[in-house]
Amino acid sequence: MTELKNDRFLRALERKPVDVTPVWMMRQAGRYLPEYRASRAKAGSFMDLCTNPDRACEVTLQPLKRFPLDAAILFSDILTVPDAMGLGLYFEEGEGPRFRKPVRTAADVESLPTIVPDDDLAYVMNAVRTIRHELNGDIPLIGFSGSPWTLATYMVEGASSKDFRLVKSMAFDQPEVMHILLQKLAAAVTDYLNAQIAAGAQAVQIFDTWGGSLGDRAYPEFSLNYMRQIVDGLTREREGRRVPVILFTKNGGQWLEVMADSGADCLGLDWTTNIGQARQRVGDRVTLQGNMDPTMLYASPERIRAEVATILESFGPGEGHVFNLGHGITPGVDPEHARVFIESVHELSARYHQ
Amino acid sequence: MTELKNDRFLRALERKPVDVTPVWMMRQAGRYLPEYRASRAKAGSFMDLCTNPDRACEVTLQPLKRFPLDAAILFSDILTVPDAMGLGLYFEEGEGPRFRKPVRTAADVESLPTIVPDDDLAYVMNAVRTIRHELNGDIPLIGFSGSPWTLATYMVEGASSKDFRLVKSMAFDQPEVMHILLQKLAAAVTDYLNAQIAAGAQAVQIFDTWGGSLGDRAYPEFSLNYMRQIVDGLTREREGRRVPVILFTKNGGQWLEVMADSGADCLGLDWTTNIGQARQRVGDRVTLQGNMDPTMLYASPERIRAEVATILESFGPGEGHVFNLGHGITPGVDPEHARVFIESVHELSARYHQ
Repeated sequence: MTELKNDRFLRALERKPVDVTPVWMMRQAGRYLPEYRASRAKAGSFMDLCTNPDRACEVTLQPLKRFPLDAAILFSDILTVPDAMGLGLYFEEGEGPRFRKPVRTAADVESLPTIVPDDDLAYVMNAVRTIRHELNGDIPLIGFSGSPWTLATYMVEGASSKDFRLVKSMAFDQPEVMHILLQKLAAAVTDYLNAQIAAGAQAVQIFDTWGGSLGDRAYPEFSLNYMRQIVDGLTREREGRRVPVILFTKNGGQWLEVMADSGADCLGLDWTTNIGQARQRVGDRVTLQGNMDPTMLYASPERIRAEVATILESFGPGEGHVFNLGHGITPGVDPEHARVFIESVHELSARYHQ
Repeated sequence: MTELKNDRFLRALERKPVDVTPVWMMRQAGRYLPEYRASRAKAGSFMDLCTNPDRACEVTLQPLKRFPLDAAILFSDILTVPDAMGLGLYFEEGEGPRFRKPVRTAADVESLPTIVPDDDLAYVMNAVRTIRHELNGDIPLIGFSGSPWTLATYMVEGASSKDFRLVKSMAFDQPEVMHILLQKLAAAVTDYLNAQIAAGAQAVQIFDTWGGSLGDRAYPEFSLNYMRQIVDGLTREREGRRVPVILFTKNGGQWLEVMADSGADCLGLDWTTNIGQARQRVGDRVTLQGNMDPTMLYASPERIRAEVATILESFGPGEGHVFNLGHGITPGVDPEHARVFIESVHELSARYHQ
């Protein structure tokens, strides 16, 4: 395997010295880029983009051609696993993801098949291999999956939800059924991420988009426990190098201490958490990733740069910071503002790494 | 004025001894009640319910006829103030509130009129007086308003928003314009709540529904500062008794320490915060209100009762707790489950008050 030309991202995840703070953006291959919208239009549907390895590779690389990003992230969907389980993922324009066959009963949970990611999600592994080949050792590639709880919310609700009535009712009233579902998902996600790592992913992120909808006692029981189980089951070294795991629970800022004990190498922070205080809370146990409000990218270049400076100052000198947005970049952002964000991180962070 | 027959709620807000923990529910007069749906159908629109004092009184009292609640809350909308400023509040079915004339520019902000609540929102004060008369001293009446930041989000976006692009862009790029807007709103909300207190409200709650969408530095600047200013300007004693102020920032669990320094008597907690840990963080500076996940009301009566027990145990013995949900009760809840919730609070809390 080629030596990485830029390994800042992996070094920061290991809390090793870097020249400048590495930066990438959640959803960096996305609708804010005109070239993405063109690829998407050509492909037909969102899932057509995901399931064709060449197209998935093409859009993965688009932001890297524009900006000096320190990591690539596989272009895919967080709901590929339940789709492979036969639930029938589809997208309604402006409505978010939906499943044709939601999981509502103990029998539904029982009948969920075990997936073999190399077969059932071969398109993902092909995309990972294609992207790795095209990256040619420039920067590392991040693989990812939704967390078991996050997958369960869509599988039980059958769609996006505001109050999670169905999935929480199952968790509260039939916890034994919910735990079987989450156990199946934890096993599937472990296999899925290990397959991505075997195919070439050099770090993985678990997106716990909806863990923060749970209460403070329900979160460890229904979300964190299963992410910990996944972390325990992952291949953590490959190509002679650690494969770090990033855990991102949106709205999880109150639970960083228990998250830091999960075995993950890094915690993703949304923008509601003070990153300096977060660093004090977790100490040197984990790297922190984040955490500019994505809406800041609608502000002026000067304001974006000032915000980057404030976050760098809040984290302070020393290692263990991967810069990112606190959530995905949104469709209306001017790509030039994304450039200002990324370049500001590199320019303003050098003084913190001496 | 009549002596209150049940003053547990006000006593708990003053951290004075009570026999059992008082309880009320945000949105307790709401769509989960068939009698509310009937009143709403008869009235025509939601705003017709709010603007007619007899109808507003009727729906305010509906949950009290069913359940042994310890407080009534004025039936109204959080957006009455901007409506009185001439923005033209209306509701699209299933879409949430909208404004015909959103506030987008410095000129829009400049031209916002000063309101005189007793004139411009006379229907609210008439509702307060009517409800107080009908309550006849049984339990106290809570008045309320949206927070300046929360009002500003709707006024600038013109509708509900997922990412608050427009209002945050104004805050980030034209902070001086945003501060003029928030200053006008803080003054208007102060006058509005003081008018409610003069009309008979015995406690007031500031609903900061969207303060939690702000980052950790933006929250104090754009939301908390203006709520503090309101608290400072409120009538705090009337009818020989303290008029307590409750401050509820949804998703504000990371900021309780600064919120506790706002001068408010009580902080509302959503269900993501551990109420026992919150109590340790704020000490005896404020009462805590909350914090069961409203979705728990879809679970079985046994599960609801167990959750109430867990929250009471988490808060522990002693004073300074008002039980509530972590957010408003949702339309699909069986009213009998609300009864189980309320009765469980009273039955299970006596042992913590000896």
